[in-house]
Amino acid sequence: MPPTAPGATVASLGEFALIDRLAAALAETGAATAPGLLGIGDDAAIWTPTPGTRAVVTTDSLIAGIHFRLDWTSWRDLGHKALAVNLSDIAAMGARPRLAVISLALTGQEPLAGLLDLYRGLGALAATHGIAIAGGDIVASPERLGLHVTALGESWPEAHGHLLTRDAARPGDLLAVSGPLGLSAAGLRLLVESSVVGRQSSEEHTAATPPLPPTAPAPVPPHDSRPTTHAPPYALRLTPYAFLASHHRPHPRIAYGRALVAAGGRVAMDLSDGLVGDLAKICARSHVGARVDEAALPVPPAVRDRFPNDWLALATRGGEDYELLFAAPAATIARLRVLCAARDLPAPIVIGAILPAPPDGPPITLRHPDGREEPIGGGAFDHFSAAH
Amino acid sequence: MPPTAPGATVASLGEFALIDRLAAALAETGAATAPGLLGIGDDAAIWTPTPGTRAVVTTDSLIAGIHFRLDWTSWRDLGHKALAVNLSDIAAMGARPRLAVISLALTGQEPLAGLLDLYRGLGALAATHGIAIAGGDIVASPERLGLHVTALGESWPEAHGHLLTRDAARPGDLLAVSGPLGLSAAGLRLLVESSVVGRQSSEEHTAATPPLPPTAPAPVPPHDSRPTTHAPPYALRLTPYAFLASHHRPHPRIAYGRALVAAGGRVAMDLSDGLVGDLAKICARSHVGARVDEAALPVPPAVRDRFPNDWLALATRGGEDYELLFAAPAATIARLRVLCAARDLPAPIVIGAILPAPPDGPPITLRHPDGREEPIGGGAFDHFSAAH
Repeated sequence: MPPTAPGATVASLGEFALIDRLAAALAETGAATAPGLLGIGDDAAIWTPTPGTRAVVTTDSLIAGIHFRLDWTSWRDLGHKALAVNLSDIAAMGARPRLAVISLALTGQEPLAGLLDLYRGLGALAATHGIAIAGGDIVASPERLGLHVTALGESWPEAHGHLLTRDAARPGDLLAVSGPLGLSAAGLRLLVESSVVGRQSSEEHTAATPPLPPTAPAPVPPHDSRPTTHAPPYALRLTPYAFLASHHRPHPRIAYGRALVAAGGRVAMDLSDGLVGDLAKICARSHVGARVDEAALPVPPAVRDRFPNDWLALATRGGEDYELLFAAPAATIARLRVLCAARDLPAPIVIGAILPAPPDGPPITLRHPDGREEPIGGGAFDHFSAAH
Repeated sequence: MPPTAPGATVASLGEFALIDRLAAALAETGAATAPGLLGIGDDAAIWTPTPGTRAVVTTDSLIAGIHFRLDWTSWRDLGHKALAVNLSDIAAMGARPRLAVISLALTGQEPLAGLLDLYRGLGALAATHGIAIAGGDIVASPERLGLHVTALGESWPEAHGHLLTRDAARPGDLLAVSGPLGLSAAGLRLLVESSVVGRQSSEEHTAATPPLPPTAPAPVPPHDSRPTTHAPPYALRLTPYAFLASHHRPHPRIAYGRALVAAGGRVAMDLSDGLVGDLAKICARSHVGARVDEAALPVPPAVRDRFPNDWLALATRGGEDYELLFAAPAATIARLRVLCAARDLPAPIVIGAILPAPPDGPPITLRHPDGREEPIGGGAFDHFSAAH
């Protein structure tokens, strides 16, 4: 591979040389070498579905200035996240991801070194899960960078034909999540605050939070751990690391989704738009209501400490946790608990219950610790509406 | 479905209402109802691969101002084209398309009526080929509209495991195409010219070229027909219709790709970047050279008449013809000819031959009608490089 000229950009290199360089960066990660796969360099990628499986496909895009800021994230983390949010959708179906394609919409001013790092981050996550990056497309987008990823997966044979959808929740089901809530939103809040404080603070923040190594899991504090800090001056340097890691490097809960299928689960989605907004989608598709118990929400003490007035909003409306939200009968949750223990996965966290759909009003009720119940409106993130 | 308020935009409607409306527009076309498919409204779409098939996946994006201009195309044609360019990649593998997902990158100012028409155009093409539109993603892209489509297909059982790739061309193969060249580039040239002439001319042009009905094939003049016009004042009103239809509503050569597989073909790609640039990719991947016979190029007389000085450039470097370019032994071409006749497809048009790779210099030679041979450089369309 030819050396990279310092300061090389897409425009100085050209489209076709760029494709070669990106493919080489990907090959380093081991992600592009799936058996039976013809990848980058032809009209389309080919793969052989595992006999008897069903296939799933999902697509998710990240746009600069909307979903990420290049001054807040490393290129490597950005590559990780662009793939991770798609794998999370595959995980939420209880399927096994197999390959992904990427359409890069480039301004032409991106540094080559940055794009190579993007592919390294993406490839490292793909390699971890045995996924092939099977080509894609590169187009010009003069004003802003966009990453458009489509991921493909297969339903796991143990599913017996069942996959995790949004339309099968039933009154009496328990409502549960796979992990802590609010960490990613707390990370985003810190980024916004450090940006508001000014450029100097932003640089300090950047220096204090090096990107994680590509394959290390995000260090998520267990939600029953003790607060790790009470000193506001240090807050940006200590616990925020976990918040930021959760925001920049979400981990798709693939093994969890498969365990849920194996336990007999039928209903799941991944938490991308926030608990309330996402739960509303299950309620709408399943024609049910739901109750969320505030006291049961797995919000890490570090988040409660750092945002004493907002932690509930971060946990219920913050979004981008990429944990699984699922509903199932108590017996299924009990089987899942056993499977999770056997597979070294975190135990399911019950946060409420599915109820009959209310005759009118919002479908979701929040039960406060004092027993008071309060209907809460939708409020999923809408990219265009100014109504919330 | 609620009525559409006149002048409604994405921003006034909101993201989730928009998704419902787009799904309804799609359902009208009959495209979204594939057996065994769970489509719009869950984390991912599910489908059941046909046992024994291999799967192919491709992704292609269209960006406003780069790949299309909203003042040059109708929304319905744009929807058609966004899917067609992806299906063309599936066709070029010799596979059968089965479903597609779409990521819409919207400014928020798009008229709702336009987006519904976009989905109608897309759905009509999908329905024609029995393809499901299985959901997607909607993101904000403040400056310009982008359409990011990923299509999935299956290799046809008659393929016996063979698909059409770029790496299997051998010296001695004939080089052929599935249809006329240069029509789309001629259409684009007319649009540019009418734009340069000014707004009045552009409006006249728009009035003179209504969008084609959604399922009508583009009226492509056979390349051996006589010139249809010699009167320059009428040129913009008569023959350009075929040019513009070819540019706005390309037809993926799906049946042709499958016939080529059935005939024993191994090498094909679709012509998106122009004959010379695309052929260079086959040469590079197959480690061969090629000769193109100018006299054999199927350039419609209407294109030669309208662009007497440029028709060769339009045909060899214009791009977006979306015909198949393929290389095969003469016996395979002969079998294909029989199959095409039986299946009511146009006969293959031999335009040259595959040669051993030259020891140096460009791999492609153009043979002029007088027998003179001239090496011609690459020159595929590069979205970023200013080098050509």
